[in-house]
Amino acid sequence: MGNFKEKIAKIKAMVFDVDGVLTDGGIIPTADGDFIRKYNAKDGYAMGYALRNGYIVAIITGGVGASLRRRFDLLGVKDFHYNIADKLPVLKGIMDKYELEPEQMLYIGDDIPDLECMNFVGVSVAPADGATEVVEAADYVSQFNGGGGCARDIIEQVLRSQGDWAQTTVGVQYDGFDD
Amino acid sequence: MGNFKEKIAKIKAMVFDVDGVLTDGGIIPTADGDFIRKYNAKDGYAMGYALRNGYIVAIITGGVGASLRRRFDLLGVKDFHYNIADKLPVLKGIMDKYELEPEQMLYIGDDIPDLECMNFVGVSVAPADGATEVVEAADYVSQFNGGGGCARDIIEQVLRSQGDWAQTTVGVQYDGFDD
Amino acid sequence: MGNFKEKIAKIKAMVFDVDGVLTDGGIIPTADGDFIRKYNAKDGYAMGYALRNGYIVAIITGGVGASLRRRFDLLGVKDFHYNIADKLPVLKGIMDKYELEPEQMLYIGDDIPDLECMNFVGVSVAPADGATEVVEAADYVSQFNGGGGCARDIIEQVLRSQGDWAQTTVGVQYDGFDD
Amino acid sequence: MGNFKEKIAKIKAMVFDVDGVLTDGGIIPTADGDFIRKYNAKDGYAMGYALRNGYIVAIITGGVGASLRRRFDLLGVKDFHYNIADKLPVLKGIMDKYELEPEQMLYIGDDIPDLECMNFVGVSVAPADGATEVVEAADYVSQFNGGGGCARDIIEQVLRSQGDWAQTTVGVQYDGFDD
Repeated sequence: MGNFKEKIAKIKAMVFDVDGVLTDGGIIPTADGDFIRKYNAKDGYAMGYALRNGYIVAIITGGVGASLRRRFDLLGVKDFHYNIADKLPVLKGIMDKYELEPEQMLYIGDDIPDLECMNFVGVSVAPADGATEVVEAADYVSQFNGGGGCARDIIEQVLRSQGDWAQTTVGVQYDGFDD
Repeated sequence: MGNFKEKIAKIKAMVFDVDGVLTDGGIIPTADGDFIRKYNAKDGYAMGYALRNGYIVAIITGGVGASLRRRFDLLGVKDFHYNIADKLPVLKGIMDKYELEPEQMLYIGDDIPDLECMNFVGVSVAPADGATEVVEAADYVSQFNGGGGCARDIIEQVLRSQGDWAQTTVGVQYDGFDD
Repeated sequence: MGNFKEKIAKIKAMVFDVDGVLTDGGIIPTADGDFIRKYNAKDGYAMGYALRNGYIVAIITGGVGASLRRRFDLLGVKDFHYNIADKLPVLKGIMDKYELEPEQMLYIGDDIPDLECMNFVGVSVAPADGATEVVEAADYVSQFNGGGGCARDIIEQVLRSQGDWAQTTVGVQYDGFDD
Repeated sequence: MGNFKEKIAKIKAMVFDVDGVLTDGGIIPTADGDFIRKYNAKDGYAMGYALRNGYIVAIITGGVGASLRRRFDLLGVKDFHYNIADKLPVLKGIMDKYELEPEQMLYIGDDIPDLECMNFVGVSVAPADGATEVVEAADYVSQFNGGGGCARDIIEQVLRSQGDWAQTTVGVQYDGFDD
């Protein structure tokens, strides 16, 4: 664990799978052709907070659906990649864009299409209810499930390790929302 | 706990965060740009019952979404504040409007943007699954989670302490609902 | 319990509250003004099966929302009453319509507006997670939560007590459904 | 269990009920007349993976709703049958279409309308929270609930028994999705 603390203190970019990580894996098709998902407010607060503190927060998901991007637009996530079957090239693109080394990147995933990214980055994370292969491959397995706070858990740990967590108690004002 | 019973017997206004308090933190973006949430009927019954018995029930949330206000309109909540990044000034506005003292106010929140309000009021409450900092700061931590009855729990306790709980078994007739 | 078996063997009509009984209490407001709810397929199978075997199945709910009736229309429930603040007169109306005695009626509810009906009927039932007052008042507390199978549990017991459960393995063909 | 491993090694077709198997049984009616459901991403990954590896994956459900087919269209399931009251003739139709024997077929169901199919096929499976009669009838009861991974569990076991599981880490690229 001492080693783990040293590793997370180097992290500059945190890359998230969506289904089963930022959700409990639940996918709700609607009659108008969308696939809707339920996210977690505490995860969202931490993602927005990390972005405001200069961390890179990125999404690489195999999922599809018109509403998929909206959650991450609202949080201010600019590096958003969806309907991605082969995730590793996209991860490497993010690494190159920000001139990072693999050990400065963290990836959290829950299923087999996440394994290549997990094996590439400096810190790989799985939710407690990740697939067998993923839990075995992860550097760190959160005690929290997908959608149940696993993202909040690892973001808090990364930011604490670098002295950045909870330096303000004020939330985010969203632009352009009216009833 | 004797002290806690004395403190809640003074409460005239109960102020609620939404995400993670009146919900389990789940946020569901939809294709038409809304963010929908799942509330708890037992919490709602208690909020409406408190309002009918003369208590002030208010909402201060950082959340957004077109449907967010509807739940509280239906329950008769008039003090509804959303997309609030800095919550304490809004709380003080409610205090001034109703000419209250801080010790007559209760605030229940689950995450870091709630801490200032929690430290200001007479009685601060956290759900069982609140963020670490919030659970540590709270005067009372409910055994129930956000969306799982933490609001019902504290409303029942406040009203019981003042002899107001369950004096009628008749519910509320809503106006203007037709199929 | 011998006494309970005798009591349920007399039941001809089963009357259900909705929120917290046929659902986990979750209410989801939508931007278009509806309130949507999540029902349980196993409860629904048992309700439809009871109806096809000649039992009276009725709904008395304080809830509102355009979609509320749809679930019960599909199951074939004809005695559907919503936005009911004062439930006992409606229950007595069902009793008179079908020329029943109170001991031929079962009511399952989870919150304070259900207490008068529960005290009136021959068999009163609460879900495991019913409100304190309701669990105390009930003749029978299911081991299952609202939306988690409490309705299935009591319907199975009533029909088994009268030799009617699981006499066929064929389900229901719904009319008028096309993609 | 040795016997079970031999039996699943013969399976060519896996046939799934929907409500209570691929979902937790939750059915959400909407104001526009649909019934929406929440599926599980890990189940979906396994169903798509089995299809790409030459297994037959079929759906026979009693459920209805305009959005019901969409999940399975996306996964590439061609044998999709809904609003089916009497399931066994449909199962036999699938058997004939692919020139299979019953011992090459697996059926997973959770309620009484599934019993005839379960008794017909070579391997019958129930989720942990299946109805009493179904759990008693099943060759194998998953430790996972409906919607909680019971489908993933049995698909993994079938494919592992035939050396087909997790031979690639690349996911599926969906056609025709744009924001």
